[in-house]
Amino acid sequence: MKIEIIAIGDELTSGRILNTTSSFAARNLFEAGYEIYGMNTIGDTPSLIGEALKQALSRADAVLVTGGLGSTDDDLTNEAVSKALNRPTMPNFEILSNIRTHLDEITSTPVGQLEKLAWLPSGAEALSPQSQMAGYQLIHDDKPIFFLPGIPSQMKHLLVEQVLPKLSTWQKDHRLTTYQRIFRIFNLPEMEVNRRITTLDLSPDVHIGYYPVFPEVHLSLIVRDKKNNNAKRLFNSSCQAIGTVLGDSIYGYDRDNLEMVVGKLLIDRHLQLAVAESCTGGLICRKITDTPGSSAYFLGGIVSYANSMKAHYLGISPKLLLAHGAVSRETAEAMAVGIRAGSGADIALAVTGVAGPSGGTKVKPVGTVYIAIATAEENWVTKFHFRGDREHIREITAESGLDLIRKYLLQKVG
Amino acid sequence: MKIEIIAIGDELTSGRILNTTSSFAARNLFEAGYEIYGMNTIGDTPSLIGEALKQALSRADAVLVTGGLGSTDDDLTNEAVSKALNRPTMPNFEILSNIRTHLDEITSTPVGQLEKLAWLPSGAEALSPQSQMAGYQLIHDDKPIFFLPGIPSQMKHLLVEQVLPKLSTWQKDHRLTTYQRIFRIFNLPEMEVNRRITTLDLSPDVHIGYYPVFPEVHLSLIVRDKKNNNAKRLFNSSCQAIGTVLGDSIYGYDRDNLEMVVGKLLIDRHLQLAVAESCTGGLICRKITDTPGSSAYFLGGIVSYANSMKAHYLGISPKLLLAHGAVSRETAEAMAVGIRAGSGADIALAVTGVAGPSGGTKVKPVGTVYIAIATAEENWVTKFHFRGDREHIREITAESGLDLIRKYLLQKVG
Repeated sequence: MKIEIIAIGDELTSGRILNTTSSFAARNLFEAGYEIYGMNTIGDTPSLIGEALKQALSRADAVLVTGGLGSTDDDLTNEAVSKALNRPTMPNFEILSNIRTHLDEITSTPVGQLEKLAWLPSGAEALSPQSQMAGYQLIHDDKPIFFLPGIPSQMKHLLVEQVLPKLSTWQKDHRLTTYQRIFRIFNLPEMEVNRRITTLDLSPDVHIGYYPVFPEVHLSLIVRDKKNNNAKRLFNSSCQAIGTVLGDSIYGYDRDNLEMVVGKLLIDRHLQLAVAESCTGGLICRKITDTPGSSAYFLGGIVSYANSMKAHYLGISPKLLLAHGAVSRETAEAMAVGIRAGSGADIALAVTGVAGPSGGTKVKPVGTVYIAIATAEENWVTKFHFRGDREHIREITAESGLDLIRKYLLQKVG
Repeated sequence: MKIEIIAIGDELTSGRILNTTSSFAARNLFEAGYEIYGMNTIGDTPSLIGEALKQALSRADAVLVTGGLGSTDDDLTNEAVSKALNRPTMPNFEILSNIRTHLDEITSTPVGQLEKLAWLPSGAEALSPQSQMAGYQLIHDDKPIFFLPGIPSQMKHLLVEQVLPKLSTWQKDHRLTTYQRIFRIFNLPEMEVNRRITTLDLSPDVHIGYYPVFPEVHLSLIVRDKKNNNAKRLFNSSCQAIGTVLGDSIYGYDRDNLEMVVGKLLIDRHLQLAVAESCTGGLICRKITDTPGSSAYFLGGIVSYANSMKAHYLGISPKLLLAHGAVSRETAEAMAVGIRAGSGADIALAVTGVAGPSGGTKVKPVGTVYIAIATAEENWVTKFHFRGDREHIREITAESGLDLIRKYLLQKVG
């Protein structure tokens, strides 16, 4: 079953807003076993909306449309759908009465403006009329079309709660059994990953994709089939073969990220982490605390951006800073030792470097980074030369720090 | 001049990777005065690539294609273009000799695999043959088609350095003079912004768009015209009118963000900032240090995730924590006072709250957040109840903290 996704909005076609909703929809539909014919993004122009919708209906089995359903003047999807499919708009009385009932809760917006939300193309079935979220389904030419709001949180909610269940009752046998694994790889270039995979001589039914997602490489393995058994066996043996050639460069799978993997390793070993960061300015702490429950293994950190912070909070002597500089092996180690002592953590990570664009020197150019780990037994410092702009250097520094912790925990704290 | 953008890659249509390149291209092309007909995303399937390309050529004046140009086995764009436009692939000898010369620098990849990069559809003109980046231009049916790599950094570089200059010499008089301003608004709901703008009764030649970008609302004002004078006058008077009805809810314009605006205010007033954060876990520090040059006004911060960190680094007494809890008016104030004293900053920001998903209680549900500001003269604490998931609560907490600093600096430190 092929699905086409259409996103509507001038904010998207002028590049002011990044389209995240189409990607979310594609991932969820793909993982549920549908094929994505394509994703189309067009502006708030009724004639283009109509044309795109009719074209999608001519080549796909179902269509998902997002955006342009709101109550402001630039929301034109319903008008366009009405014209293109020859379905006059009519008021949905459940939505209408809901708007009127909740009106006093909603701000001072005049009734007329909000009531626009209740006028839908004829035949439309509202997805969640009680919820104050726009969104409806139309069956046209025997194909389901779903219209969802462009606001990512609402769109995601309705897709998962309404669209996926409704789709699953539609042409049930047209879905393919899909086995997919993403191998998340750090510290191995894309071409080297490709070279190693090529040596495996995998079956042509195994679809491999390579995706550099700075600073990582993601390898996607997909086997799709109507006959479960063969596909599953092929999937398992291929996964195993890939594991053999890539080794511990694979840090995780599917939706893992480095900070989640590090978190699990710390929990397993009953260890607590603290961080001192300079050039990354809080990025490592933020990544770690993105994960719910991180307070179980993360105590906190010091963002010692100014030298005075390094002295006051990490006990780094002005003499050391003067002798070696803030970006040095000695300072990195002292930062890790300092935060470990102050926080009482079992293991501490510290980074100091030149993220740029200014601040580089001949001896320590932009991209020079020192990463230190301190434990009760020993301290390590590793020097890196990263390339790229400020954002890239900060990102790869943060991931390299987390990956060093991962490898330390795997190798030294079995 | 209408341009259609096509992005190619199974990683995009299966939602594994977010398409950021099309949005970047759309923004740059739009701002250079072109109209974007639409953005199309399709998988690595030669027949679909060919169909999309031919369709785009039939309705747009120029086409930009990204993705599928690399040397790994899943890169199929050149093959598809060759078939669809009936242009056999041929080796580009400049690229070929460049690959052979640089080969020893590049890893252990076999020559044959890399040489795939040099085989282009006939008539292709390589954009940057010396650079080791794929990318070329084709003129077909008198229309320019640009093919760029899907890797964002390479695609962005070639778009700005090669595509925009080449396009600007093509049908020069078809570009529209574009006046655009984005008003960046915090702390005012989208519908209220819409309501206030409606009272202005702006000319129909002024295009207004409303975009909720959590937790902000962005209002876009566009005037496009071939006659410079009228458009410019209309643009200026409309901007002024909008400023009057939205006041200081407008924190900035165009590509400003809250942390940049706060940075400028601090520099103007010769003040230095330090931050203590709990539930945001480093997010505020990271935002501030995203801005190059932030070391001029930002000393650093403490991510006091565990209570032991609050005690050790911020001097918060266990008695206070026991009496009021980590999420309280008293703790927020003590955190701000503590980081201000320890860092020597002029002004300090502290946040503590329940970001969820767990940790909420009846008295302090998920979303309860206290934000404190401390200065030499006085301290303020503000209590908030935010809604949404962990990511939303962290984001709106960080922005609310920055906005409080902004308003404090504007109102109290003129």
